[in-house]
Amino acid sequence: MPVVSPLRIGVVDTRGMNAQSGRTGNLVQQTVHRIAAYIRDEMLRVGDQLPSEGALGERLCVSRTVVREAVRALAALGIVDVGNGRKPRVAAASAFPFIMALAHSTQTGQITVRQIWEARSCIEVKTATLAADNRTEVQAARLLELARQMRDLQDNADAMADIEIEFHQLIAVASRNILFEHLLASFAPLIESASHSAWDIRSTPKDEEEELVKIHLAIAIAIASGDRKGAADAMQLHFDRAIGILIQAHYEPS
Amino acid sequence: MPVVSPLRIGVVDTRGMNAQSGRTGNLVQQTVHRIAAYIRDEMLRVGDQLPSEGALGERLCVSRTVVREAVRALAALGIVDVGNGRKPRVAAASAFPFIMALAHSTQTGQITVRQIWEARSCIEVKTATLAADNRTEVQAARLLELARQMRDLQDNADAMADIEIEFHQLIAVASRNILFEHLLASFAPLIESASHSAWDIRSTPKDEEEELVKIHLAIAIAIASGDRKGAADAMQLHFDRAIGILIQAHYEPS
Repeated sequence: MPVVSPLRIGVVDTRGMNAQSGRTGNLVQQTVHRIAAYIRDEMLRVGDQLPSEGALGERLCVSRTVVREAVRALAALGIVDVGNGRKPRVAAASAFPFIMALAHSTQTGQITVRQIWEARSCIEVKTATLAADNRTEVQAARLLELARQMRDLQDNADAMADIEIEFHQLIAVASRNILFEHLLASFAPLIESASHSAWDIRSTPKDEEEELVKIHLAIAIAIASGDRKGAADAMQLHFDRAIGILIQAHYEPS
Repeated sequence: MPVVSPLRIGVVDTRGMNAQSGRTGNLVQQTVHRIAAYIRDEMLRVGDQLPSEGALGERLCVSRTVVREAVRALAALGIVDVGNGRKPRVAAASAFPFIMALAHSTQTGQITVRQIWEARSCIEVKTATLAADNRTEVQAARLLELARQMRDLQDNADAMADIEIEFHQLIAVASRNILFEHLLASFAPLIESASHSAWDIRSTPKDEEEELVKIHLAIAIAIASGDRKGAADAMQLHFDRAIGILIQAHYEPS
């Protein structure tokens, strides 16, 4: 039984709650927080049903319209699932808010590709470490298989890129920390484009390709054998060398 | 001028888009993505105005009701700002979706305190490194001031906790990477409760307090003097020792 009290979040910073301004907007915002507090206080779990919109409205002394808007905001944030006519249910944590928020920041110039890479490298070194501790036998076997496929497929750029993407996502899943998994998912569109570039248009293809293949094999072997230090070092090397060079060449031409 | 094409995100994973099921729900989801694509394709920036709901509906061939729901979902995700009667505007990136998503995962038992700490430690070591590169003179002075206040205030537990929280948040801001800043903000409720416990109820208060104070001073000095390696090492030490002990003692009693 986890200790509950330190997890209680009484006041959530609402500066970013970009809902409607004015009285109704504030009421919807407050209702969003009060429904989130209800989920917390009742210790609801994924799949548990919330009261109907009418019942929530009575409980929170707000109109059904306000409840409906608040529930929709919570659905957009991945906190509840709603269906036609069904009562809302507590949702499984989702990468969706992370994906949307990061895509927005990137596309509107509020974060650079280099900054996402900074975040990605520190997170992936950690997921490699955790995967060495937590990976299942099936995951270990799949990682090794993917690394060997990379070795055998060096002439097929698209296949290489797809394998590399699966490789990194599998490590995040094997880390068993959903925050890392969701963050990695939010990097995916950028990783995909960088990965396809990497296997496609590098200037000294054979050398660098072979080094990349070797590094992935080293990462897979370290994770499969539970060597957390080896996994972290190999992943760090991957980011320091291959991808560091790539990002400088492709995203930040001087 | 950044290269735009690798940032284009054509297909966003919608598995987590917990909106209404059924035809209308799907239409709202699609509209969410199409409005996000509009912001991207028109290369809009923060504060730029979107077309009115009516004009967006005509452009995307959906009803005004569908547009309104999609815009509200985008507002909940921190992607647009909407006001009474005003046209929606592109929003500044916000910590809000991260805060809500992580609070939800924590409160519904989908992520543990230890797992958030895993993420926090790797992110804070990186923010310390980046802060050593990017901090302003004002930020450097404030960090040193906060560290000295910690030294002078050792008998006041609440004041210590508040100073420590400001200290870590300032480092995230000084890193100049908004993803780190928003992630740290999403950890804030947990940090706050852990920090208050740390200064309040540790068993061997004086020794550990003095060590914590020393580590914070070392972090501040390293960041102020632009010593990225020193900043990273001191922050790593902070997490390995003081907080590692704390989290084991308070959150995972055996």
